[in-house]
Amino acid sequence: MERTFIKDLSKHIDSEVLIKGWVDNRRDHGKLIFLDIRDGGAKVQAVVLPGEAQANAHDLRSEWTVVITALVKARPEKMVNEKELNGSLEIEVKTLEVLAKAQELPFDQKAELNLDTRLDYRPLTLRSSRDRAIFKVQHEILRAYREFLTGENFIEFQAPKLVGEDAEGGGNVFKVEYLYDQTAYLATSPQLYKQMMVGVFERVFATGDVFRAEKHSTTRHTNEYTSLDVEFGFIKDHTDIMRLEARLMHFMVKHLGETCALQFKELGAELPLLKEEFPVMKMRDAQKLILEKTGEDHTNEPDLDPSDERFLCEYARAELGSDFIFITHYPTPKRPFYTFDDPEVPGFTRSFDLLFRGVEITTGGQRIHDPEVLIAKAKARGLDPEKFGFYLQAFKYGMPPHGGWGMGLERLTQKFLGLGNLKEATLFPRDINRIDTRLSKGE
Amino acid sequence: MERTFIKDLSKHIDSEVLIKGWVDNRRDHGKLIFLDIRDGGAKVQAVVLPGEAQANAHDLRSEWTVVITALVKARPEKMVNEKELNGSLEIEVKTLEVLAKAQELPFDQKAELNLDTRLDYRPLTLRSSRDRAIFKVQHEILRAYREFLTGENFIEFQAPKLVGEDAEGGGNVFKVEYLYDQTAYLATSPQLYKQMMVGVFERVFATGDVFRAEKHSTTRHTNEYTSLDVEFGFIKDHTDIMRLEARLMHFMVKHLGETCALQFKELGAELPLLKEEFPVMKMRDAQKLILEKTGEDHTNEPDLDPSDERFLCEYARAELGSDFIFITHYPTPKRPFYTFDDPEVPGFTRSFDLLFRGVEITTGGQRIHDPEVLIAKAKARGLDPEKFGFYLQAFKYGMPPHGGWGMGLERLTQKFLGLGNLKEATLFPRDINRIDTRLSKGE
Repeated sequence: MERTFIKDLSKHIDSEVLIKGWVDNRRDHGKLIFLDIRDGGAKVQAVVLPGEAQANAHDLRSEWTVVITALVKARPEKMVNEKELNGSLEIEVKTLEVLAKAQELPFDQKAELNLDTRLDYRPLTLRSSRDRAIFKVQHEILRAYREFLTGENFIEFQAPKLVGEDAEGGGNVFKVEYLYDQTAYLATSPQLYKQMMVGVFERVFATGDVFRAEKHSTTRHTNEYTSLDVEFGFIKDHTDIMRLEARLMHFMVKHLGETCALQFKELGAELPLLKEEFPVMKMRDAQKLILEKTGEDHTNEPDLDPSDERFLCEYARAELGSDFIFITHYPTPKRPFYTFDDPEVPGFTRSFDLLFRGVEITTGGQRIHDPEVLIAKAKARGLDPEKFGFYLQAFKYGMPPHGGWGMGLERLTQKFLGLGNLKEATLFPRDINRIDTRLSKGE
Repeated sequence: MERTFIKDLSKHIDSEVLIKGWVDNRRDHGKLIFLDIRDGGAKVQAVVLPGEAQANAHDLRSEWTVVITALVKARPEKMVNEKELNGSLEIEVKTLEVLAKAQELPFDQKAELNLDTRLDYRPLTLRSSRDRAIFKVQHEILRAYREFLTGENFIEFQAPKLVGEDAEGGGNVFKVEYLYDQTAYLATSPQLYKQMMVGVFERVFATGDVFRAEKHSTTRHTNEYTSLDVEFGFIKDHTDIMRLEARLMHFMVKHLGETCALQFKELGAELPLLKEEFPVMKMRDAQKLILEKTGEDHTNEPDLDPSDERFLCEYARAELGSDFIFITHYPTPKRPFYTFDDPEVPGFTRSFDLLFRGVEITTGGQRIHDPEVLIAKAKARGLDPEKFGFYLQAFKYGMPPHGGWGMGLERLTQKFLGLGNLKEATLFPRDINRIDTRLSKGE
């Protein structure tokens, strides 16, 4: 008999099926044994009636892997559970074979565990309904990202992670011992490569890990994350980039609604509110609004702080009916050297952040495309243009006006699902205390 | 007027269009100036008649970026060039605006350049027709890979690149200075993570960079490449994995035929020959065949060497009508500790390589799923199971029979396109001599 995936059982009512998976749970009810059986995609309730199969079923424990033949039956109407994919059916086990046993679990998977315990037991805790829902959503976010951009004539490229220089001079880079005692570094972003690729394909994107050697201890940072990057040419200004991103978000929200409704339900999360056009505000205007509404005077600050971002998101939701809001025109010194100054707003850049549910999820903007201006800007920041010789070729040999964004996949997942900590949306988080197992810092 | 992409011009015959792009080439023919204009996706021939636009056109040089309004005209039948996308049309320039100029090129993009020069000038040479074709094909290989696996109920996951241990003990790992003077390493493969993820989603894949600290100097190795990984559970044995991979290759070849015919033509490459079922041969039988056909006795060798792989590919193509051939049952000591021994062929494993056009493009196999066996195997290799504690959780808590493969995106691209060197199929190759610019080894 061919295997049936558990998600497809409703197509097989009153037929016999072969299923494979893990025991999620066993409950003995007098003569009947109830099992929840889980495979890669879904769960189903199985009942084992008295008889041969039950002899095996008595020993079963959580996480044992099994092969089952069973009859698929519709549940009586009063037993239907609308909240679950297979809530309207159950399976009656005919034969049951154990493929692999499991040790007794150190805790109940449904228990509220603290984050460190969840991470200590990551290979096990990732099997919980909650975690499976989180990373199924992450998979679909990424799928929507690529599908939308491919449809917009973007080409995906592979940005290298090993780089020769701490090019942006941020200092927050990890050093690598390269061959022959050379030093290399881990890329903090694919920025310079995606700009070079604009010269090649005009519209490019990349999805891959980036590395930040910062000693963070917050709920919104880790030291390695997946950056979703875009860069494209022949733009008028930063508003072309923002329009593309708003369309991407519409596409993504629709895709998540279609593919992850059960996962959102499982996590008690809601799809975001969004308008055809996203609200847009200059940073200085946002600071004035904050002063007006809260009495807090941040109007001379060079950047928004986390409380400002939270306020603006609450304001956008309550007053503008949007969970997304673009803030534009950050001051020149607060943005990287390659950021395009807005000639119409001296001292400020054609840059933007996209805020979503209290935090910045994207940083983007137009970039300088004139090599002379770019070199002058780098020098003014104390950077050595010699180190950028390779990158500068792209500009010397003809570069159109262009720009793009960077966005963290894990943070986006966190905010879509309303998770308290970025690490919950990171499969194997790296931070000051942990690379899989806890680090012994100088102990 | 809204912009038209050059690939879509044939839909606009006899209409006026707005196009944007780079000057690929300028040719003055008496009163007429001919331009090849290129955008992210395609090229078109433009003619500038005497008049206002021609004044600007005289100054144009390769790689200048321009905005053009033009009339799209069908070419007279005898002027049609069947080999090009826009070979049956040309555009008559009405207005021409220069967005950015470019320095004079250091060489003609059509010249035969040696590989080092191509790499020294990568941001420029990637703009050549040849390189654009290579990396468009690479994009489509990756797209086909993900599309096929998603359709087979696989979930994509993000494998970390920073790892805490040189877990497989190969020694060919790059060291990273992590925070607080800790040492981390760059992952040589997502192997251990994808196995852990089998416990979570049963069927998983990952696409991402891996790092090998080897001092290679061959046409088929680099120090950073994109690994396309698969791992899935509930298999009978390694033949389930091979069947999935053969179906993937059929899907990919079909996809490339549909999306990249022009690119294959540009590169003089041909789609592979492939049969519904791929030929399969045990390693020992392959060695016997080599002895019989060539007189070379490698029957006591523990592995195939490059000349064996070339012979087997030539044999498969000539005798079996296939550019692909699976070789199975490599000896236990030649495979990693987690490889499943074949109980029916003592001393040999349920492992395979897929050979394609002369080289191995995939290594795969069934893995050990019993934690006791796995620990014993690790110890027998002198590995410390303590270091694998995190990974071993996946096995202690119930793991089905499983297996998978790893395959290099760049090598696959190289072989599909018949390129002589892997670096031609790597956007920004890292090797003993180069990270973008040439390294000065101990000079």
